[in-house]
Amino acid sequence: MAHALDQLTGLSYAKGHATGNDFVLISDPQDQLVLQAEHVAALADRHFGLGGDGVIRAVPTAAVEEYAYQVEAQPDAYWFMDYRNADGSIAEMCGNGVRLFVHFLIQEQLVDLPVGSTLQIGSRAGVKQVTRLEDGYAVNLGPWGLIHSEQANDNALDSLVRAHGWEQGRPALSITMGNPHAVVALAEMQELSALDLSVAPAVDPVPEHGTNVEFVVPAEPLVSEGIGAVTMRVHERGVGETLSCGTGACAAAAAVRYWAGSTTVIDDWVVNIPGGQVGVAFRKNEDGTDDVILSGPAVLVGRGVLTRD
Amino acid sequence: MAHALDQLTGLSYAKGHATGNDFVLISDPQDQLVLQAEHVAALADRHFGLGGDGVIRAVPTAAVEEYAYQVEAQPDAYWFMDYRNADGSIAEMCGNGVRLFVHFLIQEQLVDLPVGSTLQIGSRAGVKQVTRLEDGYAVNLGPWGLIHSEQANDNALDSLVRAHGWEQGRPALSITMGNPHAVVALAEMQELSALDLSVAPAVDPVPEHGTNVEFVVPAEPLVSEGIGAVTMRVHERGVGETLSCGTGACAAAAAVRYWAGSTTVIDDWVVNIPGGQVGVAFRKNEDGTDDVILSGPAVLVGRGVLTRD
Repeated sequence: MAHALDQLTGLSYAKGHATGNDFVLISDPQDQLVLQAEHVAALADRHFGLGGDGVIRAVPTAAVEEYAYQVEAQPDAYWFMDYRNADGSIAEMCGNGVRLFVHFLIQEQLVDLPVGSTLQIGSRAGVKQVTRLEDGYAVNLGPWGLIHSEQANDNALDSLVRAHGWEQGRPALSITMGNPHAVVALAEMQELSALDLSVAPAVDPVPEHGTNVEFVVPAEPLVSEGIGAVTMRVHERGVGETLSCGTGACAAAAAVRYWAGSTTVIDDWVVNIPGGQVGVAFRKNEDGTDDVILSGPAVLVGRGVLTRD
Repeated sequence: MAHALDQLTGLSYAKGHATGNDFVLISDPQDQLVLQAEHVAALADRHFGLGGDGVIRAVPTAAVEEYAYQVEAQPDAYWFMDYRNADGSIAEMCGNGVRLFVHFLIQEQLVDLPVGSTLQIGSRAGVKQVTRLEDGYAVNLGPWGLIHSEQANDNALDSLVRAHGWEQGRPALSITMGNPHAVVALAEMQELSALDLSVAPAVDPVPEHGTNVEFVVPAEPLVSEGIGAVTMRVHERGVGETLSCGTGACAAAAAVRYWAGSTTVIDDWVVNIPGGQVGVAFRKNEDGTDDVILSGPAVLVGRGVLTRD
């Protein structure tokens, strides 16, 4: 790993986070950087490197052979989010990371994006629309869906989740946001804070590719303002408990909204997560699906240069 | 915490580590920085800040009222290591941190220290001597001692340590390096790697102020070269398992050396820790005690400026 960082000496970086989901960001406007898995792992290492949940490189979409078609089809998708997990593996999308990515592009003066304007971003999950808000960014993550829709009914609870220490499983709703989630409703905040998520919750039936698990406490919907509220904690597959999971917040709001049925449909939600607060909005598509729009803050904490002395 | 970082906007920092024990370093030659516990905690936060096991500020010893006497008595102790734990609390000494501190002073061109020369450093644990080596730094951490010397004999094992999952406790030797350690010998590397240190080992009798616990596998001493070898893992009190504990490495070598008895006393040891390798040397004082000298590498990984955008 020392060797991997040696090869990056002199590279400029930024460190930042979106609701506690933190990243090392690198600007590579000429696509000159060969960022291999070992480089990413060395950068993201919290003791031997800079530290982060992942590494995000900003590179022109046209330079990424496999995804250059995106900017050909949508010429405004100039920048591509080359997103990597902390272990160096590739991930398609991250609802927190993409907010920080656009913030980074603005602060690096790679794009000019007035408040209220929308930027198109190339990604491995397709072109994403990110809108700059007064106090953060909103990204359209596309439609949500029920995973077991064939079994689902208006109050579908299609699997059982058993948190560490629970005597038996409790019913959960399986939701896809492109990645899988199982959402479990708890009655009280005290039950939420008492959860032991240091061990992965057991899910029955066992999902073939694993699943994120969200434990949610629905608040009384603030119907007067037309805004619902949820507080949640999340166990991310292959990671553990995290401060923030963007798609998890979307799944949590989608589940609570789904359970509420069709009488009073609330489309705007506030989701409280350990790392802060995000907004989740549902906007109907022409085909009847709902797009999910995640909004929240992003901040750069430091800018630096890799040294090796 | 956001607020605490806001107050530090524009501050220059470096990030580095010594065998995986990592720190944020700040140069404050004019003693202009009021670094409160919440600033330290915000800087050291691994998600919302820069991340580190602690924060080290370089400040003139003469500027630190309580310890200014050190530079009066030893005028060469110009620089003071203002060491803080990640939670913002104050710590007296860190055998890894002090190596990185001197490396930082050199790289910031605050001192000129040729290889083989020794620098005096003011600290809350008194003035320390740090020598620059070809490939790292050596610090004299002062004498080691038996904690329960009244009970000790040539093969003293004065407490019982039970690692998580063990059916019963095993005998350990209690050693002080200024801070307390309990050292347990294991027979095989495989036993060492199988240890579950995610839970604090139980120590009997329970130490009043807690203790670090080292699990060591003594290698065949390399008597031909006069060098002994130990491999260890450590559970630090109040922290958990760490990649590296400088005083723990010293205690591990001291215990194995003590157990070997007086027939062939080896004074130079190599200690393998999860974060790399350090050297531990014993040098006799006139009063019969042995000073312990810890040596090992230190490296700066990045230099930057705190932003808030």
